[in-house]
Amino acid sequence: MPDAAATALEPTDRTTLRRKRDRGSHDREVIDAILDEALVAHVGFAAPHGPVVLPMAHVRIGDDLYLHGAAGNDLLRNLAAGADACVTVTLLDGLVFARSAFHHAVNYRCVVLLGQATRVTDATEMRTASAGLLDHLAPGRSLDARPPTDDELRATLFVRFPILEGSAKVRSGGPSEEPADLDLPVWAGEVPLRLVADDERPHSPDGTPPPTPTYITNHALR
Amino acid sequence: MPDAAATALEPTDRTTLRRKRDRGSHDREVIDAILDEALVAHVGFAAPHGPVVLPMAHVRIGDDLYLHGAAGNDLLRNLAAGADACVTVTLLDGLVFARSAFHHAVNYRCVVLLGQATRVTDATEMRTASAGLLDHLAPGRSLDARPPTDDELRATLFVRFPILEGSAKVRSGGPSEEPADLDLPVWAGEVPLRLVADDERPHSPDGTPPPTPTYITNHALR
Repeated sequence: MPDAAATALEPTDRTTLRRKRDRGSHDREVIDAILDEALVAHVGFAAPHGPVVLPMAHVRIGDDLYLHGAAGNDLLRNLAAGADACVTVTLLDGLVFARSAFHHAVNYRCVVLLGQATRVTDATEMRTASAGLLDHLAPGRSLDARPPTDDELRATLFVRFPILEGSAKVRSGGPSEEPADLDLPVWAGEVPLRLVADDERPHSPDGTPPPTPTYITNHALR
Repeated sequence: MPDAAATALEPTDRTTLRRKRDRGSHDREVIDAILDEALVAHVGFAAPHGPVVLPMAHVRIGDDLYLHGAAGNDLLRNLAAGADACVTVTLLDGLVFARSAFHHAVNYRCVVLLGQATRVTDATEMRTASAGLLDHLAPGRSLDARPPTDDELRATLFVRFPILEGSAKVRSGGPSEEPADLDLPVWAGEVPLRLVADDERPHSPDGTPPPTPTYITNHALR
């Protein structure tokens, strides 16, 4: 749950939307729903040799986003050292076909967060983040899986990225069109897209996998 | 088609994979297949106020990636001015549940390209890029939709990003496990994910949409 006092992010100069402002929002409810549904974030920072953008798993816990990876991961080490970062999360909702090439579009929900991460050093917070990352894939999973050992925690770098500065942008619905194009004999409309899960493939080196838990068969994907 | 001479990208210091090298590739065939299947790219550059990562539509034409947007788009203007950029394209293929929290993973195919874009100024190349962007959404669409007018081209900023420096990284299959964990009574395996298209929603302000073309009903999504 977001902090009750933080129902919207304060717009800053760099998060004031300049284009298609009607699609933008600083509401935490909008932002959190996108962060919670998406399974991948694209994390960018400016390396000495140029900008780098990499996909990472994430989880929102309250007012923070947690990222993690191998202790030697270069991007995470830079984030842990306080590098300015941008975390972008995009859900693709549909393709929009207009009668004109110009008005073709994509429906999406996107969150862009700016800021600096902090390395998580507290073992309890690491364990909470680890559980959160698992439960983000499948709610309840952290109660089943063997928790990380101390060695495994030492091999993992967790960073906490505050949900403080950023915005959401959303496009939905059909195409906008030039009035003169409406009579053209060209199909127009939206093709909705959605991520689905196919039947699970059990991993059973000895041929007898344990029963599938309900959070797999009822996975929360739309 | 990639240039026959360029069947693999030359690894550079910044594109030499340092972690999980067995998952990496510089092969153009691997890279191109990911770029061609994905419908969204995450484009990053270092703005004066910090790194920015935004989702954009893209299309690969031969040895280049084309991006476009409104002529006033800040990220594209920076790219057109020669800013160092990173273009990352990620396909999410599955969730990987291990018996231990530590070995949970995500299956994905990802391309990271580094370099500098060039503004497209030639009207013929703009029209080719515009058609390519449409046909990337639905092959054949550019033959149906009304092409851009000169005014619409002037309102659009196209940039060409060379596929010269970068790499692909792919994870697939089930979990790796610690041998000692294999007897734990915990389900493990892979939940494959895939992007699907639902029934199209025609846009028909006057109630009589033209017949749906085959490239919509047979859309190429997996």
